[in-house]
Amino acid sequence: MAKLVALYKKPADAAAFDAHYHATHVPLAKTIAGLRRYEVSSGPVMTPQGESPLHLAAILSFDSLAALQAAMASPQGQATAADLANFAQAGVDLLIFDSKEV
Amino acid sequence: MAKLVALYKKPADAAAFDAHYHATHVPLAKTIAGLRRYEVSSGPVMTPQGESPLHLAAILSFDSLAALQAAMASPQGQATAADLANFAQAGVDLLIFDSKEV
Repeated sequence: MAKLVALYKKPADAAAFDAHYHATHVPLAKTIAGLRRYEVSSGPVMTPQGESPLHLAAILSFDSLAALQAAMASPQGQATAADLANFAQAGVDLLIFDSKEV
Repeated sequence: MAKLVALYKKPADAAAFDAHYHATHVPLAKTIAGLRRYEVSSGPVMTPQGESPLHLAAILSFDSLAALQAAMASPQGQATAADLANFAQAGVDLLIFDSKEV
């Protein structure tokens, strides 16, 4: 499956981030056609050494890289991407890759 | 499910990295008890803007954070972590978090 991994840096106001993420961003993202699985971190994002600079991580799965790219280019994908400006001011890294189970 | 996400920076010798990763690291990691799913990027790891600083991404899934932590502490987990020194000299970020499907 192809993956979109979103890595959100720690925001100034974590409660406001969480409220917007769950009430607005998740429902928006779920309108995207072709989204097969949407997993979101629950609790802290850590490293083996302890704290990480991240507040939240999300993994969105699609059938293929073509499906993921079509999803991002769709009006729903564009609206979801535009919504990042409303809550991810601290920064977000988006990673896109095809993957296979080994 | 709990996730271990490994983000490998671009190595000096990509072919040597890939050979070691697939012939040695994957089989080692697959000896870890409790590993439920092991997905590895196939092809480039990109960003929406184009190239990323990453060569490879892996997502390992476990039933729970407790299972993931027990796996990392096990002899097989420790051997897998120790193997990173053999091919991930360019750097790897490991992220650990519990997750839920939304």
